[in-house]
Amino acid sequence: MPVLHHHPLSAASRYVRLVLAEFGEEVTLVDEQPWERSEAFLALNPAGTLPVLIDETDGAVVGATPIAEYLQETRGARLGEDVLMPSAPAARAEVRRLADWFLGKLESEVTGYLVTEKVFKRLAPGPNGASSPDAAAIRAARSNIRYHLRYIGYLVARRNCLAGKEISFADLAAAAEISCIDYLGEVPWEEDSNAKAWYARMKSRPSFRSILADTVRGNPPATHYADLDF
Amino acid sequence: MPVLHHHPLSAASRYVRLVLAEFGEEVTLVDEQPWERSEAFLALNPAGTLPVLIDETDGAVVGATPIAEYLQETRGARLGEDVLMPSAPAARAEVRRLADWFLGKLESEVTGYLVTEKVFKRLAPGPNGASSPDAAAIRAARSNIRYHLRYIGYLVARRNCLAGKEISFADLAAAAEISCIDYLGEVPWEEDSNAKAWYARMKSRPSFRSILADTVRGNPPATHYADLDF
Repeated sequence: MPVLHHHPLSAASRYVRLVLAEFGEEVTLVDEQPWERSEAFLALNPAGTLPVLIDETDGAVVGATPIAEYLQETRGARLGEDVLMPSAPAARAEVRRLADWFLGKLESEVTGYLVTEKVFKRLAPGPNGASSPDAAAIRAARSNIRYHLRYIGYLVARRNCLAGKEISFADLAAAAEISCIDYLGEVPWEEDSNAKAWYARMKSRPSFRSILADTVRGNPPATHYADLDF
Repeated sequence: MPVLHHHPLSAASRYVRLVLAEFGEEVTLVDEQPWERSEAFLALNPAGTLPVLIDETDGAVVGATPIAEYLQETRGARLGEDVLMPSAPAARAEVRRLADWFLGKLESEVTGYLVTEKVFKRLAPGPNGASSPDAAAIRAARSNIRYHLRYIGYLVARRNCLAGKEISFADLAAAAEISCIDYLGEVPWEEDSNAKAWYARMKSRPSFRSILADTVRGNPPATHYADLDF
């Protein structure tokens, strides 16, 4: 069984967990505290970032996007060639653009701020004890989530799923990010009913079960977090 | 002929120019000033980032990594399947890890700071005229470039090229970033002879010619920039 070095509130790690589950692949999860920069972990990934997949045959595969492509090449084929990734190059490019958008832009404009300020700063106290959350960063995240939610709603209204008619890596990437934000109770669901309906569909997939069972010590999820009818 | 929306000192754009040239594909270049956020450009790419490739058949392909994968899928095959991208999934994952490392980490720790502070701030003056470069950002970049150069030297000494024996997307990504830094005269070449020898090899490739001919108004390149024997 492959091993995934992850953190429950790392959206990139959640993305890989969703990809694995969609491909019907079981995995052993190893919790990492990315801020600790342990030598053993840096030997696996000199960048010190999550996630890292350890494949039984191929060894360490590093980074959410390389892992997703790797799993598609090694596991996806057995489910049919275009599960999660269409076969036409232009359609593949659109899936990759959107997966990068969510894992890059939504992460850096919203998820990263919220998880760092509300969770990691408390779990990883500095030399003088825990530092207090940066209110400006949290305000920026709360403002930015609104246009990301509208963009999801816009895409879904036109295409059914984010990159086209069928579910793809783009939906899993977006759902992984949104699920971390939702864990912290920071998604203004009332603002976009299309985005909400899309996330309700994503949440109902069997691949989402382990994500919805996540808890982080000292930071319980928002009350509606695991509720399929939120 | 495809069209590439780019900026001469956008490393991600240079990466795609190198990939196109390695695949023997001619391209029409359209200069963009990414800070202008023109409506026409945002319609091509809502993220407002460079590069964007306009393929004659498939339309807009957005983002350096999706474009490289797209070109490999649509153009790479005619040169032999493993030009720039090996065929084994584990080797592909290593190429992708390193391309992401350079386009992400080297970009955000070095190239982005230097290009923004030394060039873009002057070309894109704020409401009160040009803002002065942030000395702390430039200092950080000058410190960070050293360990990136050592990492390149370390990989090359063990593998010949960055991700393995043969040249790959990883080498082109690293060379694109380094070439922007070198344009600004900010690579401390004396610090790593393996990295220097690798870059001399990269610079000598025909695909590099157009990169070495680049100039930006008001910012001429460092004197040794186009010199193959630097």
